[in-house]
Amino acid sequence: MITVLSGGTGTPKLLQGIKELVDNDELNIIVNTLENEYFSGVYVSADIDTVLYTMADMINEEFWYGVRDDTFITHERLNEIGTPELLRIGDIDRATKIQKTLLLENHPLDEVVKIQARNMGIKANIMPMSNENSDIKIVTDIGELEFHDFLIKHQSEPEVLDVVFSEVAPAPGIIEVIKNSKAVIIGPSNPITSILPILSLDGVREALKETHVVAVSPIIGNDSVSGPASKFMKALGIPVSSVGVASLYKDFLNNFVIDDKDSDLKEEIENFIDEVTVTNTIMKNLDDKKKLSELILNNI
Amino acid sequence: MITVLSGGTGTPKLLQGIKELVDNDELNIIVNTLENEYFSGVYVSADIDTVLYTMADMINEEFWYGVRDDTFITHERLNEIGTPELLRIGDIDRATKIQKTLLLENHPLDEVVKIQARNMGIKANIMPMSNENSDIKIVTDIGELEFHDFLIKHQSEPEVLDVVFSEVAPAPGIIEVIKNSKAVIIGPSNPITSILPILSLDGVREALKETHVVAVSPIIGNDSVSGPASKFMKALGIPVSSVGVASLYKDFLNNFVIDDKDSDLKEEIENFIDEVTVTNTIMKNLDDKKKLSELILNNI
Repeated sequence: MITVLSGGTGTPKLLQGIKELVDNDELNIIVNTLENEYFSGVYVSADIDTVLYTMADMINEEFWYGVRDDTFITHERLNEIGTPELLRIGDIDRATKIQKTLLLENHPLDEVVKIQARNMGIKANIMPMSNENSDIKIVTDIGELEFHDFLIKHQSEPEVLDVVFSEVAPAPGIIEVIKNSKAVIIGPSNPITSILPILSLDGVREALKETHVVAVSPIIGNDSVSGPASKFMKALGIPVSSVGVASLYKDFLNNFVIDDKDSDLKEEIENFIDEVTVTNTIMKNLDDKKKLSELILNNI
Repeated sequence: MITVLSGGTGTPKLLQGIKELVDNDELNIIVNTLENEYFSGVYVSADIDTVLYTMADMINEEFWYGVRDDTFITHERLNEIGTPELLRIGDIDRATKIQKTLLLENHPLDEVVKIQARNMGIKANIMPMSNENSDIKIVTDIGELEFHDFLIKHQSEPEVLDVVFSEVAPAPGIIEVIKNSKAVIIGPSNPITSILPILSLDGVREALKETHVVAVSPIIGNDSVSGPASKFMKALGIPVSSVGVASLYKDFLNNFVIDDKDSDLKEEIENFIDEVTVTNTIMKNLDDKKKLSELILNNI
């Protein structure tokens, strides 16, 4: 059994490789839920839906959000009649969100996700990190912003001063799954807004110490491969580099995978992480994804 | 100023004629809200939306429900992933319903409808009969059914034993609008489930007594022109004929319009209604609708 910690858009790319190489019945994916919120009357758990669509081979790979080739008829009409949606929800994607909202009336989120995964023919066990509603606030130079306001409305442009999120309880089974896994893989997701929320759940860091953990750095040089990770790291006083990311995971990490371009950092990171693997971490196509996944899987 | 009482599908057909002939700024349409209900997480006020789409020239004239040439991408996907919708909501139509649901968080229904009508470029004043949530139950030989369950799921097939609906307060301005109108037109809608709910609002029958009222019969011979009206009338012990309909309106009705085919009933109805007009009431095309509207408007 293998467990992947996922959020945002970096890890789903890696998941496309992993899912081709392992028995999906033996694959758990624990997903960040911190940015979950209601939009246009439907419950949006962006990171979970991205993992669902990735595992169902439906993901829109341009945005790593929503469904490939989706239409936007309802979304555009809402705009026309004067109720624009902050989030661009497609018509197929909206069905997922409506179903989730309706199922949440009678089920906790983890059961809802299980039902949706089964309905989409997904064999992997997708687990939201928590069933509790939580909240993340980005403190910026123009004031405190909701995460999606920062990301979409303000296009990640304001300077980030701090990131604050509420504490929530882990969803049932999360800790057991981590402890019982042969290895846990932390994908190249934003360490601050995607991975730290999972790591700060009660018992997760302790469970990771008992398990073999491999992480892939989302940073090459001094910038994030995609998204605003570097902004958040800077705000929290963490060096924007693979060294900085490794420092966040040092109490439990066994193997850190960094990009070829950062090979000069290997020695520095080896001062506090057992093993550092240097390889190509830029995943441009399925072949890249499978190669990176294979290297990780062969080393656990 | 003219006011039309509307519900279901009969009156909207007549409205297509009336809207071509009168100053729409001087036209009020009071609409039944008794069947309003939440479906798939959105507030559905079927009769109001039918009037909105009719007045915005968007109505699907095959079903007199929803938008012409709409797509059903979200609806079909919901079906595919295991959450079928009882109501067939199109993608454009869904935007109306999402907007209504969101606006209802901060506005009463009458204001919501005004906003939506304005957004759709409608000049007529569309008024829901009530801002209160209400309920209609159809008592049948297979048990008590929600109205939409009876209509859609059971295709109006069970035998109707009784119709029960909750009392609600009229929306602000309804009584004044009726009193201040030159005439009130009751369209050929189901008298039991569309018109009686409006008539049973506190003060409506009294206000109608002070106004010139014309009604168009929805019954020809012993059957309803469309829909299950005859079933409901039978259940309540009302003769299924234009005579039966007239008896429901007799305390305030000035002029009753019946179909040519019912000309033999003219005399009987004239025993308790001042004036009976015999004409073609079957509206197959815009010309029929305009002719019937013209005759009504010329007689007020």
